[in-house]
Amino acid sequence: MSIENNKSGKESKKIYDRATKVLTGGVSRNTIFRKPHPFYVSTANGSYITDVDGCKRLDFANNMASLIHGHSHPKIVEAVTEQLKKGSAFTMGSEIEVKYAELLNNRTRAFEKIRFMNSGTEAVMTMIKAARVYTGKHKIAKAEGTYHGTYDYAEISQTSNPANWGSIDKPNAVPVVEETPEGILNDMVIFPFNDIERTLELLNQNADEIACVLIDLVPHRVGLIPANKEYIEAIYKWTRENNAVLAFDEVVTYRVNYSGAQENYNVEPDLTALGKIIGGGFPIGALAGKSEIMKVLDPRENFLRHPHSGTFSANPISITAGYTAMRMFDKQAVLNLNNLTKIAIKQVEEVISLAGIPACVTGDGSMFRVHFNNTKPTTYRESYQEKEVKIIINKLLDYLFLKEDIIMINTCACMFSTTLNQQHVDKLSESLLNGFRIIKPELENLF
Amino acid sequence: MSIENNKSGKESKKIYDRATKVLTGGVSRNTIFRKPHPFYVSTANGSYITDVDGCKRLDFANNMASLIHGHSHPKIVEAVTEQLKKGSAFTMGSEIEVKYAELLNNRTRAFEKIRFMNSGTEAVMTMIKAARVYTGKHKIAKAEGTYHGTYDYAEISQTSNPANWGSIDKPNAVPVVEETPEGILNDMVIFPFNDIERTLELLNQNADEIACVLIDLVPHRVGLIPANKEYIEAIYKWTRENNAVLAFDEVVTYRVNYSGAQENYNVEPDLTALGKIIGGGFPIGALAGKSEIMKVLDPRENFLRHPHSGTFSANPISITAGYTAMRMFDKQAVLNLNNLTKIAIKQVEEVISLAGIPACVTGDGSMFRVHFNNTKPTTYRESYQEKEVKIIINKLLDYLFLKEDIIMINTCACMFSTTLNQQHVDKLSESLLNGFRIIKPELENLF
Repeated sequence: MSIENNKSGKESKKIYDRATKVLTGGVSRNTIFRKPHPFYVSTANGSYITDVDGCKRLDFANNMASLIHGHSHPKIVEAVTEQLKKGSAFTMGSEIEVKYAELLNNRTRAFEKIRFMNSGTEAVMTMIKAARVYTGKHKIAKAEGTYHGTYDYAEISQTSNPANWGSIDKPNAVPVVEETPEGILNDMVIFPFNDIERTLELLNQNADEIACVLIDLVPHRVGLIPANKEYIEAIYKWTRENNAVLAFDEVVTYRVNYSGAQENYNVEPDLTALGKIIGGGFPIGALAGKSEIMKVLDPRENFLRHPHSGTFSANPISITAGYTAMRMFDKQAVLNLNNLTKIAIKQVEEVISLAGIPACVTGDGSMFRVHFNNTKPTTYRESYQEKEVKIIINKLLDYLFLKEDIIMINTCACMFSTTLNQQHVDKLSESLLNGFRIIKPELENLF
Repeated sequence: MSIENNKSGKESKKIYDRATKVLTGGVSRNTIFRKPHPFYVSTANGSYITDVDGCKRLDFANNMASLIHGHSHPKIVEAVTEQLKKGSAFTMGSEIEVKYAELLNNRTRAFEKIRFMNSGTEAVMTMIKAARVYTGKHKIAKAEGTYHGTYDYAEISQTSNPANWGSIDKPNAVPVVEETPEGILNDMVIFPFNDIERTLELLNQNADEIACVLIDLVPHRVGLIPANKEYIEAIYKWTRENNAVLAFDEVVTYRVNYSGAQENYNVEPDLTALGKIIGGGFPIGALAGKSEIMKVLDPRENFLRHPHSGTFSANPISITAGYTAMRMFDKQAVLNLNNLTKIAIKQVEEVISLAGIPACVTGDGSMFRVHFNNTKPTTYRESYQEKEVKIIINKLLDYLFLKEDIIMINTCACMFSTTLNQQHVDKLSESLLNGFRIIKPELENLF
């Protein structure tokens, strides 16, 4: 088999042809879908994934930011292999769940109590429900463009576009899924991220009804732009004055610092939703926060206000993998990873300059995203990719994937893992330079 | 350490004391909570779980019906151990996901297309959302008392009680979690299970608005009573005449036959939610059904009506475990397991008779539940356990757990696995006989 044949994904195409007969659209996650067909993994180790055609690629997506130590980390494999022999799920407890709760609560000051679940979607859903119970109110305030999983309330306005987003003074609550009930849309307050004045005005208009303000501190879909300190402080202050829960979604951003992205701010959230890296590569979600609020979930209470269960919640496999991963992701490891990412950002900025294309980089911690604008976007609407830009980005990503053997996230973002090193970063920036030169003529046509 | 000390759970108590400091209520699932403290697992193999105090118990709960081959089945451990070395999650596909989709779709005629997710809760949520998209309607009809996970719509009226359930002609939509928005309650149609006349009347009253009729064919919380054939046929007919989706929740009941509980009926659902056993002991959920409806999730469509993703959806660990488990759960294995369960039910009925207590057994396939009534309940309201009965049941379950080393589900139910044998069944019926004799005086006081 020639290299070209390998890269064309002949075996992947065969598998996808079977997949379309049994899976709707041939996939279980739209994330892995690509035209003309997705590619299928044979083995993955460290920062490399080898597909079923034998093509080995360098991975900067890390399963949508969920793998902080790359693939098949030997310590995680060892710990999970040991646990496997002792069972994977029981109608009883596991000590490791307690040890892991201790570790995470020690790690982040705002985590007084925690509860594990199965996904980020479940964590955000439980966070919203708990906020309703605690405040006795029903409206959910969130930023336009932020992704918080697939619970109806959480997903509103994630994919707003110029045709439906309405005035920036009062962004529309735009459903992601057709036929979202009107009652859900009416319970949403959508605000423009990082815009203190407009956000406070919108919160004030709904002050008596807002149960929680849901915040992603470095929202990937908004542009991977960190929230301003004064913005978060203003929202914090507002929630104190208006009996609302300050709810951080750190499913993606917990990787930003040792204690999560929240370490960058002077105020603490009431509740935090977690997922992704805290599972060590296995399905997980968690809700952590103030004891006083978490108490609504406590089965020891005479009146259990928020009954909650889950067959696989805190299963010892996900918990063992997560515990092992997060122990290894200590302060030094976080620092090293963030430093490498800083170098990568600098190198990507250099090749943008070398290629002479209109582009810039945003990000925080171990994450960055390339935008095809001359100046860094500061809002969702500024970082919104028009169809023509998306086509060019897809061309770039296809080039990287098929010719340079580089995997990036489909927004043109990288989520680093500790298995990456300077050589990998050099390869990335060289490949991006080649790619940028290829898309340059098309980019120039746009401006 | 004496046996009595072992059984008292000294080490478990120590762990729980730490747990209460970091986990709300000391647990992540209320299911494992028990007074004065939960017990913690050291190792689990086949049908036995050994706790951290060295006490070995015979398990009839199988992690709330999710383990069809007991604990740490060597073939599942082997397959997962192999996959572990190749990676646990990627932003790419895995062939095993396609093979597993082929296996399940071949297994059940109503599964034309399938999509995997992370939990039963996610599967039911996606099923409800897909039904809304497909029908353009918003109301969800479900039976009083059925459990369908923790999505707001799905959980309404799961815990209805005499003080709030209202008239049987029009059961109230009773929230499980406090402060459930009114809009959600207004979108619910709650009907009495297995009551054709009342159910059809309630469906007719909302005919223009019902998106789906959500059915558990053998609802555990309703009493583990199989749905009548004519009842399901009448509902099927009604959905055909009223543009509504017939949605089966087989998260628990897929174990009942080779093709799920739906094999017992002459009609097929439009959609089926799956979970529990199809994960082989690992977190999973799935939605399967008609291509025409599943198409709303298809990313190849020009207008994707129901975007859906999930970081760990179809991860190759859960999929490998599930595929291995379900291949072993072939027609003969299903038959053997159901036959053993039939024998167990017969033996339990015999010891009920021997003990001379007012009790009976309901169930189907590899599941049964003991009720403390002289006659088998036929509805949720009949099988509803008053507080005094619950206290007696807890006393029985504590006796079984602490003195007989038997684990049952807290409703007094058993969910069998293929690792159980006649000796285990004999031990169960002998232990139940002892337990029944202990609670007999208290039961007699009730009647």
